[in-house]
Amino acid sequence: MQSVAGDPREGRIARLRAGLLSAGLDALLISSRANTRYLTGFSGSSSLLVVSQAATVLITDFRYRAQGRVEAGGVADLEIEGTSLWSRLWTVLPRLAGVSSVGFESQHMLHVDAQRVVESGARWQWRPTANLVESLRQQKDAGELECIKAAVAIAELALERTVPEIAAGRTELEVAARLEMWLRELGSEAHPFETIIASGERSALPHAHASRRELQDGDLIIVDFGAVSGGYCSDITRTFVLGRANAAQREAYDIVREANATASAAVWAGMRGRDADAIARDYIERHGLGAEFGHSLGHGIGLEVHEAPRLAKTIDAPLMVGAVVTIEPGVYRDGWGGIRIEDDVWIGPDGPVVLTAFPRQLMELV
Amino acid sequence: MQSVAGDPREGRIARLRAGLLSAGLDALLISSRANTRYLTGFSGSSSLLVVSQAATVLITDFRYRAQGRVEAGGVADLEIEGTSLWSRLWTVLPRLAGVSSVGFESQHMLHVDAQRVVESGARWQWRPTANLVESLRQQKDAGELECIKAAVAIAELALERTVPEIAAGRTELEVAARLEMWLRELGSEAHPFETIIASGERSALPHAHASRRELQDGDLIIVDFGAVSGGYCSDITRTFVLGRANAAQREAYDIVREANATASAAVWAGMRGRDADAIARDYIERHGLGAEFGHSLGHGIGLEVHEAPRLAKTIDAPLMVGAVVTIEPGVYRDGWGGIRIEDDVWIGPDGPVVLTAFPRQLMELV
Repeated sequence: MQSVAGDPREGRIARLRAGLLSAGLDALLISSRANTRYLTGFSGSSSLLVVSQAATVLITDFRYRAQGRVEAGGVADLEIEGTSLWSRLWTVLPRLAGVSSVGFESQHMLHVDAQRVVESGARWQWRPTANLVESLRQQKDAGELECIKAAVAIAELALERTVPEIAAGRTELEVAARLEMWLRELGSEAHPFETIIASGERSALPHAHASRRELQDGDLIIVDFGAVSGGYCSDITRTFVLGRANAAQREAYDIVREANATASAAVWAGMRGRDADAIARDYIERHGLGAEFGHSLGHGIGLEVHEAPRLAKTIDAPLMVGAVVTIEPGVYRDGWGGIRIEDDVWIGPDGPVVLTAFPRQLMELV
Repeated sequence: MQSVAGDPREGRIARLRAGLLSAGLDALLISSRANTRYLTGFSGSSSLLVVSQAATVLITDFRYRAQGRVEAGGVADLEIEGTSLWSRLWTVLPRLAGVSSVGFESQHMLHVDAQRVVESGARWQWRPTANLVESLRQQKDAGELECIKAAVAIAELALERTVPEIAAGRTELEVAARLEMWLRELGSEAHPFETIIASGERSALPHAHASRRELQDGDLIIVDFGAVSGGYCSDITRTFVLGRANAAQREAYDIVREANATASAAVWAGMRGRDADAIARDYIERHGLGAEFGHSLGHGIGLEVHEAPRLAKTIDAPLMVGAVVTIEPGVYRDGWGGIRIEDDVWIGPDGPVVLTAFPRQLMELV
């Protein structure tokens, strides 16, 4: 790929270089797959990327020779390695003039690899870093936002086509089969995480994957899934009732729905992650279900389905303009079931924009 | 779950304890998800497991309270944490009498977490370890082998049902949609990796995922996918030709098929990983395509789709009785395409047993 005017990857690499200067680093060794894709476009699973002020070098293996050239050739020099990416690093780094202090990604490098780097690369000063690229990734540009919107559209249409097929006697796995088929037919490049279809008592398990359990009349059914478009993820949850909802289901559903709506309307840039979380949590607590909302409110989505920022009660970092986050309050009661409603929300300069349009009112599948 | 006589998890924990004694460790901190599942049955995505001679303690978060009890209650004491698994570790460890040296999994712990452990846990001696649990996992017991066989059966039946739907004009994504639907309908608990449907020139990319490319007459089509049953994976590849194969396709196919068959019949316990790899590599080299076989021959499968052992030219470790490995030679030619044939093989006490039965002869889809 030729480098083109306005290639967003060039702007990203330039911003990273400014960040390296601020951090007093001559170069950064990038082992995170998502960070590598963000900076270079390379989508393979095996690579090391080195960015200095003067160079961008992508080391990958034989399997990705053609793919590396197509995806990253415009912004990075490619090094194709037959045996070990790490051994190639020791031939690449000495060629980078003036590079003495090198950062590595402490949150994306295994202990064993960090040991190797420090021991084999004793002629450089190695410094653990955090979030140098992730902080850039929080602020989605227009192209990234379009990808996420496309991933949302695929997911919503797939769910719309699947809902009529949800019926008593079908297993959770059969529902997952149809939903995932539609996701792929509609162009989802991957399943960003294991589809959750959790029905009846299993819906009380916030992360239950689809099982052989047969759906029964009266079940709560949590459907949590996503799509990928242009490398970017969507992440959506809806909860249905099979048949007519009873009063307890309806009451809990309304509380979760209102918590979702309240938080989705109020997540503004500048707000701390803990304060965003508190909007939904306070609402649910005031309505008596605080003990049943055990996870945090949401997380960023983008090239990864879980990325910065986090909306949780321990997070002091403020939300940034341009982030896309999930808003996913839920309540879970052992032996009874669970309810979660999850939307994807862009934190725009003029306030939150909910990207998901699938109905949020209680849907009784009769 | 009550502990039952003959519970394989108890034997695994006992063998790990023997390994800890040999390694001079009082306890092991386990952060690998697959290792945790192997030892306790717990399948959640967020946990820390501590095993000492006297105790097995599983720390997990609120979301997995019910699931943790059901899956791991029989062999582990559960600690449910609302905020940070790591902070709970510092209340669990002091309760373990006589524990002073603690191993951690260097290959499964991020640098940032290892730093945290060493800094916050200064009253213990921390030692990086490798493969203490993985080495046990290589030798599958009868129950594990049954799970893998079930995962193979699901995958093969799904492929059988999908093949008649592969036709010119369909996109790779549409083929993936049908294949994945059948996998789920037939009970696969998850997709163990991103399904690869790579056609035409794209089949020269060994790890190309399904795209919007439309299949054309004359295409080579690589289909690489798997199923999960009881937590265990299968991993299978077949390469088809859409329409009639030409002479070059047929010639390369026969070389790959023969390399596959030769290696599958010859992977015996005790053989080094490099020697297993060499069986197929030498065959392909002798037939002039050595430069086109750029990846290694195979890898172990089990709770993970890539696990020990590795069958690669750098590996000196011998294959162990009871391992299940992939045998997946391939050739890739830029601009022309690629061919890969991958089977799952159990390395039994009396020699290799090929678990995959799907036909390996060249299948022309006409």
